[in-house]
Amino acid sequence: MINRREYTADEVHGIARRHRTWGRWGPDDELGHVNHLTADRIRAAAGLIRRGATFSLAIPMDRDGPQSGRKARVNPQHVMFRHGGDLLADWENAGRGMQSTDDAVYMALQSATQWDAFCHVFHDGRTYNDRGPETVTSAGALRNSITAMADRLVGRGVLLDLARFHQRPYLDPGEAIQAEDLAACAEAAGVEVGAGDIVLVRTGHLARRRAQEAWGDFVAGPAPGLGLGACDFLCPRGVAAVATDTWGLEVIPFESVDVRHPVHVVLLVNAGVLIGEIWDLDALAADCAADGVYEFFLTAPPLTITGAVGSPLNPIAIK
Amino acid sequence: MINRREYTADEVHGIARRHRTWGRWGPDDELGHVNHLTADRIRAAAGLIRRGATFSLAIPMDRDGPQSGRKARVNPQHVMFRHGGDLLADWENAGRGMQSTDDAVYMALQSATQWDAFCHVFHDGRTYNDRGPETVTSAGALRNSITAMADRLVGRGVLLDLARFHQRPYLDPGEAIQAEDLAACAEAAGVEVGAGDIVLVRTGHLARRRAQEAWGDFVAGPAPGLGLGACDFLCPRGVAAVATDTWGLEVIPFESVDVRHPVHVVLLVNAGVLIGEIWDLDALAADCAADGVYEFFLTAPPLTITGAVGSPLNPIAIK
Amino acid sequence: MINRREYTADEVHGIARRHRTWGRWGPDDELGHVNHLTADRIRAAAGLIRRGATFSLAIPMDRDGPQSGRKARVNPQHVMFRHGGDLLADWENAGRGMQSTDDAVYMALQSATQWDAFCHVFHDGRTYNDRGPETVTSAGALRNSITAMADRLVGRGVLLDLARFHQRPYLDPGEAIQAEDLAACAEAAGVEVGAGDIVLVRTGHLARRRAQEAWGDFVAGPAPGLGLGACDFLCPRGVAAVATDTWGLEVIPFESVDVRHPVHVVLLVNAGVLIGEIWDLDALAADCAADGVYEFFLTAPPLTITGAVGSPLNPIAIK
Amino acid sequence: MINRREYTADEVHGIARRHRTWGRWGPDDELGHVNHLTADRIRAAAGLIRRGATFSLAIPMDRDGPQSGRKARVNPQHVMFRHGGDLLADWENAGRGMQSTDDAVYMALQSATQWDAFCHVFHDGRTYNDRGPETVTSAGALRNSITAMADRLVGRGVLLDLARFHQRPYLDPGEAIQAEDLAACAEAAGVEVGAGDIVLVRTGHLARRRAQEAWGDFVAGPAPGLGLGACDFLCPRGVAAVATDTWGLEVIPFESVDVRHPVHVVLLVNAGVLIGEIWDLDALAADCAADGVYEFFLTAPPLTITGAVGSPLNPIAIK
Repeated sequence: MINRREYTADEVHGIARRHRTWGRWGPDDELGHVNHLTADRIRAAAGLIRRGATFSLAIPMDRDGPQSGRKARVNPQHVMFRHGGDLLADWENAGRGMQSTDDAVYMALQSATQWDAFCHVFHDGRTYNDRGPETVTSAGALRNSITAMADRLVGRGVLLDLARFHQRPYLDPGEAIQAEDLAACAEAAGVEVGAGDIVLVRTGHLARRRAQEAWGDFVAGPAPGLGLGACDFLCPRGVAAVATDTWGLEVIPFESVDVRHPVHVVLLVNAGVLIGEIWDLDALAADCAADGVYEFFLTAPPLTITGAVGSPLNPIAIK
Repeated sequence: MINRREYTADEVHGIARRHRTWGRWGPDDELGHVNHLTADRIRAAAGLIRRGATFSLAIPMDRDGPQSGRKARVNPQHVMFRHGGDLLADWENAGRGMQSTDDAVYMALQSATQWDAFCHVFHDGRTYNDRGPETVTSAGALRNSITAMADRLVGRGVLLDLARFHQRPYLDPGEAIQAEDLAACAEAAGVEVGAGDIVLVRTGHLARRRAQEAWGDFVAGPAPGLGLGACDFLCPRGVAAVATDTWGLEVIPFESVDVRHPVHVVLLVNAGVLIGEIWDLDALAADCAADGVYEFFLTAPPLTITGAVGSPLNPIAIK
Repeated sequence: MINRREYTADEVHGIARRHRTWGRWGPDDELGHVNHLTADRIRAAAGLIRRGATFSLAIPMDRDGPQSGRKARVNPQHVMFRHGGDLLADWENAGRGMQSTDDAVYMALQSATQWDAFCHVFHDGRTYNDRGPETVTSAGALRNSITAMADRLVGRGVLLDLARFHQRPYLDPGEAIQAEDLAACAEAAGVEVGAGDIVLVRTGHLARRRAQEAWGDFVAGPAPGLGLGACDFLCPRGVAAVATDTWGLEVIPFESVDVRHPVHVVLLVNAGVLIGEIWDLDALAADCAADGVYEFFLTAPPLTITGAVGSPLNPIAIK
Repeated sequence: MINRREYTADEVHGIARRHRTWGRWGPDDELGHVNHLTADRIRAAAGLIRRGATFSLAIPMDRDGPQSGRKARVNPQHVMFRHGGDLLADWENAGRGMQSTDDAVYMALQSATQWDAFCHVFHDGRTYNDRGPETVTSAGALRNSITAMADRLVGRGVLLDLARFHQRPYLDPGEAIQAEDLAACAEAAGVEVGAGDIVLVRTGHLARRRAQEAWGDFVAGPAPGLGLGACDFLCPRGVAAVATDTWGLEVIPFESVDVRHPVHVVLLVNAGVLIGEIWDLDALAADCAADGVYEFFLTAPPLTITGAVGSPLNPIAIK
């Protein structure tokens, strides 16, 4: 279906500059297009709760996740401090009265269903709104942390199910989704994409890997995803965030040999559009296909880990 | 104001039996009163979004949290894998093109704003719906994990601001909130508490400790909180969950010398009412006091950490 | 060269009983054959320090280790709290005066060069000296922890380089080393193996995987190693410990379809002989081949992690 | 007894320059005075093993350690992946055959008995041998990591028991140990301190806090320790390392209001003398007092955590 394109570094920079919003909301802004998630729009989005049906868009966070364990992003390591087996080991005492269990996790914040914060990506040494490297240190991000949005990220969600739109179970690795694809899919779905929306783009890639019962190269391997052209759809409309059912949002291999993750560079660094990754859109997509309604209330707040450059989350779509 | 009571073990067991719902929703049920969070009620709760104002109810998750570090529940340990300083250390290369930052956390799941899962507490060797110790092992909870509610926990929230109701900045450690207190506070607030509600009870204790700029004995020390009598208000009404701005929900010292955490035993183990702790209710409470509206849409999904016996979360109240 | 054998469960149990030492050093003993590491023998072993040459037998403990990341034993996750990049980010202040760096690790205790404690393995519900499951809980091991040997594990080391002995770069997966192989190798090396010795058996398997620049199935995959017959060499001689350059000490596939890790069952559970794994014996082996001296002083204390069932360590051989 | 002194920044710098060894062992050197730990000296030190008595100098590494939990250095968090309670929870199956237990730790590398690597401290932006901040990044230390000494740090140890020498149970916080104190104590102990030695200085402070059953301000609080004058004893003699039974080696408050940790600056950054902290010297000291022998073989290798700026360890003294 969809063809990928190739861009030089200069062309990527041109797209980035075209969508750059630095300064638009003032020098202290850390929200970018998330500013469009206004009270009015949140109130309006509440009207999309028509049935009260809820959909969790998070994958299970455990050792069977997609991470390979070869780099820093190991899968979430859930460990128990105390559990039922400890009661059994001291049953004479612990079998009576009140006993508690307890647990912890060691997890890379971007190892499962996640938000990328604006500070997650530098381009030419700057993050969103022209912040320099000194703003992200071992103490975490002083600016552009995901916690700047701790009370945001609820509002209107829109699903663009590119796989179903093309009547395919999944798009293929390397296939790029461009502006015209998003536009056509939205039109077919009967939804308009507008300011403050959180746009969910389904490629089918997560379902495919899950069906194979082996994550394989899900992390960092070839994948379908957004092409740079998609930015021309998303940015002018003022969408607050975009998320996919892939590891890295954008098409891999990238559309530029000169700039790694070029869509990240445009959206996170220049435009100020939040990025979500490894979102499980399958159950929601099935429901949307069934009732023909591709818009919903979406609640997707990050954890409040101070200075985090990303956050695991459990997004809930409500129709 | 409010006086605490004293109960024998037998009396606690009597209260527990009175509110026990085991089997009511079948032998496989893992939701208890959260079953009342139906689609109809979620839809109805959407009507409470009147202004689109959002309130994050989570405290910052970082090393300055309330945990003392003397036991397993250390404060969240946020660590950076790569940051702006790394770019500076290799500026000639990393100062150009795309660079990313990355991070992780080691955290006790109940070290900050949290849900207690039904499997968090055993009484006489059983968790909710008569599950035994073999259902919570090193692999996590096989039954009654917080993930059983991964797509629930959005709906109607009600704030009962006991501190303001008593025209005090905070209740004192040891003061117990009973059924009649909740009823009177709700009446004054003009709200009815009903099935499927998530009830937030504010004591002012979190604000007090924060004002003191030292957590002191916030964890496990004397605190105001629910008395056993509160169960007689919450359970018959079928509330789905109850959360406070304290470490342990219930009044400390406990109202029974024989049974530790007796309110947990009644709510988590017997009734199947979810418990939230260390919720920051201050900004929300100020808003409720200002506009006189003490009900709202509340979104409070847990993370999807497989088998977790608790979960950090960032609850969002929307008015 | 060396052929593997096959044993029924009954035969494994027979071997286990034959080498069982439970009660030999009293009901409270947690040392087994490590008891043979007496002051006299340590003093005698000091005489093996002839040149003052030292050899670290530990592999690097980092993310490039052998663990696949698919299970709980992820590779060691070394994280920095503060580093030089942080100084650069605040150079005007931090570029002057004293500044410190700091770091941490999340590591499975048996993810790299390690000791298995006696409590690491249960057989028919018992660990060494007839301890039951209640002795190893979430609090760690109350009995048979590796910390019981915190001030031991220095003494005489002996290298049996089976690969070189057979004039091969490495033994093949599935090849089993039996008593007669150890005896012949020791004789060729001109060493007698005796009570309290720490015996290092080199298969060449670690060097092989390293040369392939991919760990592949090093963890849990087919490997050369000790056969059950080796126990007949080690146990009667009273060796304190035995370690190899493989993941799991013993030959994989195991020599019994009925009992997993049968050599562990004999040595750890019944005989009380400590087991070391993933030891890097290559540099030491080259030196031994060069000077013909296969005995040395060996220092191999575990960390003092209370209740640990295993321990990473950096063993040092001194010739 | 011993009086502390006060130094200006210039005086500290003067002392630092006087003991600086940068370049002495070439521009690539990462060992400093540890270079004196030659094969000859190791061989000679073996002669100090006279009885075969061993002493572990590590404190227990667990949640009851000295760290307050308020900063990044939490106490070691030992967690079990699988234990005896899990067997009990599935006893019908797990009560038979072979079963294993497993565990992990999250630990700050300098939270317990430890080595400080040369890269642990920068002064005016440089570490030992004139390395800059770019040599210690999120990837760990590229130069001056403790792993540069992975096969060193065995040799002659000398105990200088300042507390006993002064016939006191412990020195008081703020008391500084100077060159003349070390010299007098060594003379009384009948030992000469020389090149390559690892010098253990006992203040009694650890025993004192332990006796109080509360760590209190052990971490970072006032403590007895080395004064800057001690450098004039240690550096000219070429000692390889110096360790104490305190949190921070040197006297606290520091002897300079201008330079924090001035002894660290002299020893780690300029002289290249390794620093050990939180070593438990009490049992060893009692033995030395009993037999009058204050020298011994000491084995103190670090873990091989790649790029670590410090390392937990279990030092073993052998007499």
